[in-house]
Amino acid sequence: MEKTFSYQQLYDFTYQVFTAIGCSTADATTATKVLLSADARGIDSHGIARLSGYVRLWEAKRVNATPDVKIIHESPSTAVVDGDSGLGLVVAPFAMQVAIDKAKNCGTGWVSVSNSNHFGIAGYHAMMALENDMIGISMTNASALVAPTFSTEKLLGTNPICVAIPAGNEPAFVADLATTTAANGKLEILQRKNQDAPSGWVQTADGGPTNDANILKKGGALLPLGGDREHGSHKGYALGSVVDIFSAVLSGANYGPWVPPFPAYVPMPENQPGKGIGHFFGAMRIDAFRTAADFKKDMDHWIKRFRSATPVLGQSKVLIPGDPEREMQAERMQNGIPLLEQVVTDLQVLGERFSIQL
Amino acid sequence: MEKTFSYQQLYDFTYQVFTAIGCSTADATTATKVLLSADARGIDSHGIARLSGYVRLWEAKRVNATPDVKIIHESPSTAVVDGDSGLGLVVAPFAMQVAIDKAKNCGTGWVSVSNSNHFGIAGYHAMMALENDMIGISMTNASALVAPTFSTEKLLGTNPICVAIPAGNEPAFVADLATTTAANGKLEILQRKNQDAPSGWVQTADGGPTNDANILKKGGALLPLGGDREHGSHKGYALGSVVDIFSAVLSGANYGPWVPPFPAYVPMPENQPGKGIGHFFGAMRIDAFRTAADFKKDMDHWIKRFRSATPVLGQSKVLIPGDPEREMQAERMQNGIPLLEQVVTDLQVLGERFSIQL
Repeated sequence: MEKTFSYQQLYDFTYQVFTAIGCSTADATTATKVLLSADARGIDSHGIARLSGYVRLWEAKRVNATPDVKIIHESPSTAVVDGDSGLGLVVAPFAMQVAIDKAKNCGTGWVSVSNSNHFGIAGYHAMMALENDMIGISMTNASALVAPTFSTEKLLGTNPICVAIPAGNEPAFVADLATTTAANGKLEILQRKNQDAPSGWVQTADGGPTNDANILKKGGALLPLGGDREHGSHKGYALGSVVDIFSAVLSGANYGPWVPPFPAYVPMPENQPGKGIGHFFGAMRIDAFRTAADFKKDMDHWIKRFRSATPVLGQSKVLIPGDPEREMQAERMQNGIPLLEQVVTDLQVLGERFSIQL
Repeated sequence: MEKTFSYQQLYDFTYQVFTAIGCSTADATTATKVLLSADARGIDSHGIARLSGYVRLWEAKRVNATPDVKIIHESPSTAVVDGDSGLGLVVAPFAMQVAIDKAKNCGTGWVSVSNSNHFGIAGYHAMMALENDMIGISMTNASALVAPTFSTEKLLGTNPICVAIPAGNEPAFVADLATTTAANGKLEILQRKNQDAPSGWVQTADGGPTNDANILKKGGALLPLGGDREHGSHKGYALGSVVDIFSAVLSGANYGPWVPPFPAYVPMPENQPGKGIGHFFGAMRIDAFRTAADFKKDMDHWIKRFRSATPVLGQSKVLIPGDPEREMQAERMQNGIPLLEQVVTDLQVLGERFSIQL
């Protein structure tokens, strides 16, 4: 059962909620745009379905609605930003803008962030670079749901990476991926439908194979991209580790099993070594390497060649990273965004509390 | 059947071969160190076993033994290097040193390289950053052996990424990985042993599943990390694409299906859009983010926590990326480097030609 809303309806509701918890006009605008970019692009697990979760983090005093976000260390091409426990939805675009400004001055900009919270989809932040003729990179760590290769313990988040690359006449290349076999959101869909998970997505509490989509509640874990050692899970583990280290060890945020959880009812890990959640952003000016015109000509050529590859039987075409999300966004901005009944109910309860009409 | 040689024996032989084809003393030294770092670290497919292949590329005039390697474009934190068709074994350390020098001046350095050739293992170049208290990144494209998700055509190389991160008392974190389920070298081992490939490593000419380790000779392809769509192959495809674009579209090298092949008997692709093979290097000074002391303290803490995780049944411990190669290097520097009989024969033929004794 789904109900469909226009983007503007969801925008107005979300903006008012962020304002109600004390965000400034500017911050509420930014947070709303970032959060709803997930719904628009079809990444439903990271959008408005999480709005009440953000509010609960604010109630638990884990999110500061009026943060003093600032640079605490910098060099010509780098900075560390302290998010002052603000919404990651606000802290991340600030930090990405710092990276873009650094790139304007010296070719590239690289910003590691401490003391933040969940930042929505990685894609929003990386894509901020595109309109500046820059390549954008974003990544974040997250609370531990993933077992490294050979580990029974969960030590890494799903730790996504996004790389956004401008093209000329073709749409931009936007790769936005969790460093796991499957994102947690996909597992949650199987849980709701009472369906099995494919082999290689999850393991049991003692590290054995399983198809139980509910295994995380029984001590099990998500698996790194690759699934098992024979299929390269040590590579997914390494990539998730790089995201964790760039986001948190470089900035002084929490890493590994000490990253704060998203659900406010889950206790904070003990003996945390850092502050909040960590992110990492990069911006590279194309013309710090070649003229943007030459680059875009080759990038269009690259995209056309891959898109025109002969597909396997049963598939109509080879996709370029970012194609499905862009097509979904065009469709949903036209026809509206469908929300599951339970999400609508959750938003209505939230709305009643703040006297805001959905 | 294997025969074991000391590192010094292989060093002397390789150095003399590079000198015999016209490399300067400095270039022959660099090329030898880079090539043999693969044998020392246990990545036998990328070491001295390829020496005769490099010589054949020189004979075919695809490798220039006396290149004028130079910066052709730069900004404070970036450069593009033209390798002048030199050995990648020489061009890559030059470019990585440019990245390190840029990082000394403005925090980070990023170098894209065109007109190069195969550069050995990615790990050697990224690890150059470690002694400078920097994080090192290296990647390269390679000739097309890999089919993107849903494609029957091979459009990407195995396109490896290495990230090397310094620690304090612990050894450095060194993740060096092909963006495929399995490296081509592992498939070659199965071919020699006449064994099947695990499911998810390769596909048939029309994109179907297969366990035939010889399928690449029959129009088949290696698969991106993830193996199939259900297990995240679109993520491995995206990562391999990012390597291709950073290495070649940013520099003006060849990309996708136009990357030059390693075997000199394979014709060059037609209508090449760029020059040679492309690489990409990065260096980030730790203290452009935090003091190196604070970073290393947290990095040691990170490594110890992951290494002490409870292992799954049948495994003795959880590994940190770089552990197996470092342990192999210690063992081989002490006890020698074993070479397969066919590699020894190949080197003896090469030695006779240049009157060099193995």
